[in-house]
Amino acid sequence: MSRAPDTWILTADCPSMLGTVDAVTRYLFEQGCYVTEHHSFDDRLSSRFFIRVEFRQPDGFDEQSFRAGLAERGESFGMVFELTPPHYRPKVVIMVSKADHCLNDLLYRQRIGQLPMDVVAVVSNHPDLEPLARWHEIPYYHFPLDPNDKPAQERKVLEVIEQKGAELVILARYMQVLSPELCRRLDGWAINIHHSLLPGFKGAKPYHQAYNKGVKLVGATAHYINNDLDEGPIIAQGVEVVDHSHYAEDLIAKGRDIECQTLARAVGFHIERRVFLNGGRTVVL
Amino acid sequence: MSRAPDTWILTADCPSMLGTVDAVTRYLFEQGCYVTEHHSFDDRLSSRFFIRVEFRQPDGFDEQSFRAGLAERGESFGMVFELTPPHYRPKVVIMVSKADHCLNDLLYRQRIGQLPMDVVAVVSNHPDLEPLARWHEIPYYHFPLDPNDKPAQERKVLEVIEQKGAELVILARYMQVLSPELCRRLDGWAINIHHSLLPGFKGAKPYHQAYNKGVKLVGATAHYINNDLDEGPIIAQGVEVVDHSHYAEDLIAKGRDIECQTLARAVGFHIERRVFLNGGRTVVL
Amino acid sequence: MSRAPDTWILTADCPSMLGTVDAVTRYLFEQGCYVTEHHSFDDRLSSRFFIRVEFRQPDGFDEQSFRAGLAERGESFGMVFELTPPHYRPKVVIMVSKADHCLNDLLYRQRIGQLPMDVVAVVSNHPDLEPLARWHEIPYYHFPLDPNDKPAQERKVLEVIEQKGAELVILARYMQVLSPELCRRLDGWAINIHHSLLPGFKGAKPYHQAYNKGVKLVGATAHYINNDLDEGPIIAQGVEVVDHSHYAEDLIAKGRDIECQTLARAVGFHIERRVFLNGGRTVVL
Amino acid sequence: MSRAPDTWILTADCPSMLGTVDAVTRYLFEQGCYVTEHHSFDDRLSSRFFIRVEFRQPDGFDEQSFRAGLAERGESFGMVFELTPPHYRPKVVIMVSKADHCLNDLLYRQRIGQLPMDVVAVVSNHPDLEPLARWHEIPYYHFPLDPNDKPAQERKVLEVIEQKGAELVILARYMQVLSPELCRRLDGWAINIHHSLLPGFKGAKPYHQAYNKGVKLVGATAHYINNDLDEGPIIAQGVEVVDHSHYAEDLIAKGRDIECQTLARAVGFHIERRVFLNGGRTVVL
Repeated sequence: MSRAPDTWILTADCPSMLGTVDAVTRYLFEQGCYVTEHHSFDDRLSSRFFIRVEFRQPDGFDEQSFRAGLAERGESFGMVFELTPPHYRPKVVIMVSKADHCLNDLLYRQRIGQLPMDVVAVVSNHPDLEPLARWHEIPYYHFPLDPNDKPAQERKVLEVIEQKGAELVILARYMQVLSPELCRRLDGWAINIHHSLLPGFKGAKPYHQAYNKGVKLVGATAHYINNDLDEGPIIAQGVEVVDHSHYAEDLIAKGRDIECQTLARAVGFHIERRVFLNGGRTVVL
Repeated sequence: MSRAPDTWILTADCPSMLGTVDAVTRYLFEQGCYVTEHHSFDDRLSSRFFIRVEFRQPDGFDEQSFRAGLAERGESFGMVFELTPPHYRPKVVIMVSKADHCLNDLLYRQRIGQLPMDVVAVVSNHPDLEPLARWHEIPYYHFPLDPNDKPAQERKVLEVIEQKGAELVILARYMQVLSPELCRRLDGWAINIHHSLLPGFKGAKPYHQAYNKGVKLVGATAHYINNDLDEGPIIAQGVEVVDHSHYAEDLIAKGRDIECQTLARAVGFHIERRVFLNGGRTVVL
Repeated sequence: MSRAPDTWILTADCPSMLGTVDAVTRYLFEQGCYVTEHHSFDDRLSSRFFIRVEFRQPDGFDEQSFRAGLAERGESFGMVFELTPPHYRPKVVIMVSKADHCLNDLLYRQRIGQLPMDVVAVVSNHPDLEPLARWHEIPYYHFPLDPNDKPAQERKVLEVIEQKGAELVILARYMQVLSPELCRRLDGWAINIHHSLLPGFKGAKPYHQAYNKGVKLVGATAHYINNDLDEGPIIAQGVEVVDHSHYAEDLIAKGRDIECQTLARAVGFHIERRVFLNGGRTVVL
Repeated sequence: MSRAPDTWILTADCPSMLGTVDAVTRYLFEQGCYVTEHHSFDDRLSSRFFIRVEFRQPDGFDEQSFRAGLAERGESFGMVFELTPPHYRPKVVIMVSKADHCLNDLLYRQRIGQLPMDVVAVVSNHPDLEPLARWHEIPYYHFPLDPNDKPAQERKVLEVIEQKGAELVILARYMQVLSPELCRRLDGWAINIHHSLLPGFKGAKPYHQAYNKGVKLVGATAHYINNDLDEGPIIAQGVEVVDHSHYAEDLIAKGRDIECQTLARAVGFHIERRVFLNGGRTVVL
């Protein structure tokens, strides 16, 4: 899966029905759009249809009228479209605590263009990672937690997210449990990295749990936030081989790479509009 | 990638052109076919379009008239179609020498239905693997090599392939170099497994070559036969971690698993019509 | 990790203490034994020492007196030795139900010498896999389960294990829960394959559980039986990438390979005396 | 393989001979050293013995007299020892050109302590990566290439390496062919990352070569520099799955992660004294 440059991305999903593919592809043809990659999937258990198309626009392409026509065409199918222009870069807020490996990795990938996004703010409950953000010239917001008023801190976090117009929130090893309110607010557009192969080793200190069980593989899971902690729809998972000589602190060190890669992969999928929600699961086209 | 049961598979390829996707999907819609999975790819370097669709037939579906209409629709695009019915099982001839791991694996996967194919003959230049074929109730042809008349042996092999109506030939560690004539004859419908990550370690004794180079990974490559030995289009590759303690004979033992899996994967892709030739490369949808 | 041929294997473990390595290596030297591979590990959390040595015997090597001298040398350390001669092939009983992929794989690896073991019996609660065992000329015992007298069936199983002098029992997808009595009896010398990455998806139908969670990786775990179901010390784990298009039945098919390989790897480690129990965990040297 | 903290590392190699293990382990015991991990390997083809021991020192440990006694003990075996104290951090010079992913990765791992080393200089034939080095407070030397006097540039590079007392040189995507003189000078203590699975795709533009061959896996190889370009002893290799949709520029992007990881792994092995030269191959204990 590799995205072609200079293409629009059109995604849609709706209940399974005869004609869903044709509704999209015929419209694209009629508008003179050149399809470069096309993938659709019809889930026979959830009876839901998912489609993702990359296409090049014709001369004189008018986005507004294209959208209008598309909406009309998809109406009887109950299709929800998303149209993403070439060179799209979503505004992203990254939330961190003290561990910096995922932040370092994400900012690096942004800088070299591998993740086409604009990180507009880094928000943390600790001051530690400010220099890293500053070097990348990204504003850093330190909102310490007041144990007596956790909602106050979350309000500040949400304020930044809203003021900055963030389209995606990344929890890059943010070590605080979010309130159900914030989870609901971020449902479907915030990606968290958990340092275990969920649903194994939920909750705190997964590497210590893994050590105690004597597992021979450790892993990481990138998932959307929903209101059930560590239970949101999984986008990507990665794994690393370990052995008896890895104590818990070695697992922590060993796991960093796979956390970074798994999170970056999930974020890439999200930005490229590859991820669809399908109940508690995802479809990744 | 997992194939839905009870579906037809429609594949096509042609030069890149506006309207290729629509030509296929509109026709399917008009015929009342229900698309369950759809994948197309347009190669911007070779300027070639590839499409694969899985669909369920409507009531009263007539294959002949469907094919006729499709041919008409695709004509102006220069599309070459292939239409594969549900429950399709190609007739397969497997060629072997003395090593039996790939044969054992393929016959096992056939028996449990993981590879939907009918192995109609096993052909070998050695008698050794006859009991294994017999146990699976498959005819075994032993054609020893006459060093003074190699073409005679190849003629016998080809005769079996033709008489049995084989649609696919699998070289499951057949340890003889095929003549250019036979290669040409099998071009595009015979799959070979080579026990290295091609193009590394071409030719004889790749594991000994690998040992001498001190590599830390060994691999296997499944590719179509063409007239350039070990150079046919690659379908699948697999890899296994090794270390200094693996002498050449250990690499041979270690490599068996990855050879079996890589070959089985390639055969599965072929049977599911996922593989398209694209010059010296393949597209796997 | 690859075993040298024609070597003895000496393993030992004991509480951590100064001089443990020297006690073993000095004795080997004094006896004229030539060490070809040597690995020791001292667990600083469990304060336990583990050692595994491969060596070639000198001319005139006398096993009995070697053992006696070794026992004396290790006494003050509380060392428990195991000495395994070259060309050792343990007697093995394999337990199965209806799924045959692991059995087919184990018998194949036995036949070609990749797993140096003598399978002396296959025991099952179903008759289905008898032909496969017979083809390999291995006695097959069908002990159906009487729901009103499960202990009777287990007594018969245990009788075969004992009469045949089995040194290792392999549960190759044996789909019955063993009684605590049988578990205790087999503790440390019976290997089970569970079709999930334990501790995730314990219990029944792990692939269905995995489907429902929408995981992007499925796996398998080979572990020793102990009295806590699916909780015995883990020997090996393997993993396979999956996606949204894999329904539960596809996961089952996809998982077969990784189950076979993971189980075979664990059995190989056990036969080569690489696995040590270390509380609820294993050390694999 | 995970290194215990606060331990000394003793490594040695010599021709295969009876008593090599004992010579080392007995001396350690006599000196009161506590062995925490011990690994030896005797190569039956090259007839060479390799040993690596991690140990904790006793009270009153005197390094000088320990070394002297050890040298005496190993003399008759022709053993060459290397003794590495706890908390050892070698001085490292990193050579780069324009691509910064490996440099960014190495400096990050240094900063968080995952690679215990002191990068004392970054040397480049381009000015581009100076800001990155500066942020990590590491001196950056820009020595542009004079096409008419390449040796002059290499002399400057070597001067920095020598003045800084570097014990290890890392070529982190340094895109110039080194002269045979410099190769000889760096033989065995300079690690290069090549962006292919050597010996496949040697030389320039390996990802373009890989694209043309239509491979389904790309990889990276970390190896010691010797006087035969891209042919030095391999330390580590890594691999990544790709498909038809990855054009050469996508392979380049996709390969970055595996290059970083493979190089970091090799550097870690080198610093932990795990790598031994064994002819044109390596032993990694």
